[in-house]
Amino acid sequence: MDTHTHFPDPDLVARFVAIVGERYAVTDPDDQAPYLKEWRDLFTGRTAAVLRPGTTQEVADILTLANETGTAIVPQGGNTGLVGAQIPDPDGHEIVISLGRLDRVREVDLDSSTITVEAGATLEKVHEEAKAVGRYFPLTLASQGSCQIGGNLSSNAGGTAVLAYGNARALCLGLEVILPTGEIWNGLRKLHKDNTGYDLKQLFIGAEGTLGIITAAVLKLEPEPKAQEVAFAGLASPKDALDLLAIAKARAGGQLTAFELMPRIGLQYVLRHQPGSRLPLEDEHDWYVLTEITSGRSSQEARTLLEEIYTEGFEAGLVEDAAIAQSLDQSAAFWLLRHSLSEVQKQEGGSIKHDVSVPVARIPQFLEEATAKVTEMVPGCRPVPFGHMGDGNIHFNVSQPVGADKETYLALWDEMNAAVHAIVASYEGSISAEHGIGRLKRDLLPGVKSALELDMMRRIKASFDPNGILNPGRIL
Amino acid sequence: MDTHTHFPDPDLVARFVAIVGERYAVTDPDDQAPYLKEWRDLFTGRTAAVLRPGTTQEVADILTLANETGTAIVPQGGNTGLVGAQIPDPDGHEIVISLGRLDRVREVDLDSSTITVEAGATLEKVHEEAKAVGRYFPLTLASQGSCQIGGNLSSNAGGTAVLAYGNARALCLGLEVILPTGEIWNGLRKLHKDNTGYDLKQLFIGAEGTLGIITAAVLKLEPEPKAQEVAFAGLASPKDALDLLAIAKARAGGQLTAFELMPRIGLQYVLRHQPGSRLPLEDEHDWYVLTEITSGRSSQEARTLLEEIYTEGFEAGLVEDAAIAQSLDQSAAFWLLRHSLSEVQKQEGGSIKHDVSVPVARIPQFLEEATAKVTEMVPGCRPVPFGHMGDGNIHFNVSQPVGADKETYLALWDEMNAAVHAIVASYEGSISAEHGIGRLKRDLLPGVKSALELDMMRRIKASFDPNGILNPGRIL
Repeated sequence: MDTHTHFPDPDLVARFVAIVGERYAVTDPDDQAPYLKEWRDLFTGRTAAVLRPGTTQEVADILTLANETGTAIVPQGGNTGLVGAQIPDPDGHEIVISLGRLDRVREVDLDSSTITVEAGATLEKVHEEAKAVGRYFPLTLASQGSCQIGGNLSSNAGGTAVLAYGNARALCLGLEVILPTGEIWNGLRKLHKDNTGYDLKQLFIGAEGTLGIITAAVLKLEPEPKAQEVAFAGLASPKDALDLLAIAKARAGGQLTAFELMPRIGLQYVLRHQPGSRLPLEDEHDWYVLTEITSGRSSQEARTLLEEIYTEGFEAGLVEDAAIAQSLDQSAAFWLLRHSLSEVQKQEGGSIKHDVSVPVARIPQFLEEATAKVTEMVPGCRPVPFGHMGDGNIHFNVSQPVGADKETYLALWDEMNAAVHAIVASYEGSISAEHGIGRLKRDLLPGVKSALELDMMRRIKASFDPNGILNPGRIL
Repeated sequence: MDTHTHFPDPDLVARFVAIVGERYAVTDPDDQAPYLKEWRDLFTGRTAAVLRPGTTQEVADILTLANETGTAIVPQGGNTGLVGAQIPDPDGHEIVISLGRLDRVREVDLDSSTITVEAGATLEKVHEEAKAVGRYFPLTLASQGSCQIGGNLSSNAGGTAVLAYGNARALCLGLEVILPTGEIWNGLRKLHKDNTGYDLKQLFIGAEGTLGIITAAVLKLEPEPKAQEVAFAGLASPKDALDLLAIAKARAGGQLTAFELMPRIGLQYVLRHQPGSRLPLEDEHDWYVLTEITSGRSSQEARTLLEEIYTEGFEAGLVEDAAIAQSLDQSAAFWLLRHSLSEVQKQEGGSIKHDVSVPVARIPQFLEEATAKVTEMVPGCRPVPFGHMGDGNIHFNVSQPVGADKETYLALWDEMNAAVHAIVASYEGSISAEHGIGRLKRDLLPGVKSALELDMMRRIKASFDPNGILNPGRIL
């Protein structure tokens, strides 16, 4: 890896700094550190300056200058991305724009049930603003305290509530975007229906900051649920979970707000490493499912629905044991088991990750085949597949064998990825269900997309960013 | 209007005909008639040939030849579009592709709950296929017997179930598209989550056939509802309806599958002209609302929800009278009142139409202001605003004054449109909530979109259709 610095000309850097003012340009390497490394330690970068604009116009001025001078720009939100899109190159030629100061709530429109926020607002801030007026913003991520709305939209974030409410894409009505050429597009609409030409916002959502920088968004708010009730169940197989999902969807429809699959080993990790965790069932089971039902009417209704679903599940022989949370504390305890699953894997050594999706019906076969494959590649490795079964999205993470050398194991990352992704491809699945492509998976894309599809993306990229200055080398 | 014919060179036409075979090329003017006129009589066209390809490859071959020879192509589905996008120019230089023969169901995947159909399948066919396997496809339009899935997606069709299930866009997981350059893009995915680059299908949905021709789609199927219960209520004002909507959404969430607003005069038209129609309330009211609740559990649950909503509505003084349908026949009778609203307006003379949306909260003010405006312009005119209140989408149709001359009245179309659209713009609304732009509203677009937004659309159009051969002059 080239670690020479190729900072842009100091005079040019000074012109960028002048746009935001010295106070908001981070040039000291120590101060820059939090912006240059992501939390899984997969990417570390350098930059002459991290610019922290305070207005949309400043973002536009930065991109205008960048476009004129051919300077590469990397936009960054809360720096919680998992594919390196937000980290500058190690050679230092890229300037970083950090959106954190653009964090105002511009408007809460209760009657239209929308909130208009700037890109740098954290997801948690949006949750709080919604709650304060008796509404609900459904996007739910483990990183919600630090991730930002601009990044959520740029990565089309998923999370645990997608089943009922959809990805970030489905929660957005309008955008304000700075194009790579510095023009400001005001697409901040509050309309649920608008068929006046191409739906341009769709292009920027999920584009990982390669087509424009989102500076503000209109988000849909939902009525605050009256109740969210949770069940935790033990099952024998993913196929049983799939059949239970069909029952739950048929009975609960849009009230089924989570259906999360977890393996026995995952729960063992959690119980071992997560303080305060406890299995709410008497015995261990090979698989677990967390089900959440949301009601706009009452806790009683939600619980009745859960009871009906699980009664039918028991009678069909799909469920071995199940518990319905009897209090908010118990609900939180059930969710803790799910939410700590990512974090506890770090305690078990190296983990090779796959963020994949397949058609929902194919999950059982996929799990079987992928498990067999990685076990054949690395005897003793420990697959910990878990995730959003209702969306067909499985985090197929594989822990190193007990006692193995972490570095040696992680050196197999690309090889194992290739094997698992080949299985995903055979099910016409996705090699990045929710985390995106960034730099981590860019070189994998030609293996899973047709040349034509890549060409279509390049045509769009070229038409918006003719000089290739915005987040170059990400996705494409 | 130029009515000279400028048919392409006969040798060139013969090459197009050869692709589908003479049997499937309609060249006789009488046989062509159904393809050359849309049902509101606003557009009539001419063409040298209506081509009826039977395979995706034939569509690709047609576009390849068109792109090489600079021949303009107009794709057509069920010819139910309302903005003229699907009708060739009157001068005859455009060749029509009718997708009706491409109507196979390629696959029904029950476990993944998807159906893969070709573009020419009617919406009704998709409904029937879904029902046959115990599933439900929510898109619901008055024209469903003849409109086709390709057209539904190309126009991002709305209809009466958008409130719970979203527009056509929200119901589509994947597409197969022929690009204007003749390349076949296979984007037929069944994934609910896929963040591997730009979401290209979003570009073609709602593009009215200007960026590519959709030849097949993967559509999401929902569990077949156990029950759909309907209430019909009389209210004093749109503001009361808005407040009732908030109650209904809070209680029913995604189970609220329709919330349709209708005015007194609209129901008077229906009762006058629609055989078998009957007002299910004792007295007339200034406004009516049809509410539908869907349940995955039982008819009883749906009805209880309706009762709760209307009890709360009565207690809040929002509802003057309400009836809950007591049988499937009654439900159908309630819906008939709503569904015949478009058709019966023809019986009352000329009608100037506006398919607009505003932020939901602004509907009452918009109605008041627009009604005052058109009444001032044409004393005695009869506004019949109705539609999908839950989506902010109102069909603001204005009947001619009783006894006025139809032609003289309709000559005011552009002037009245301009006045109403100006009010829509002041609420940051849309001048085409669901019908699209086509040729009817193309010249209005520069008045409501920024130059930058139009330029962004043109960049995309140019990058996909460099020779401008596909549906030219529609939208842009």
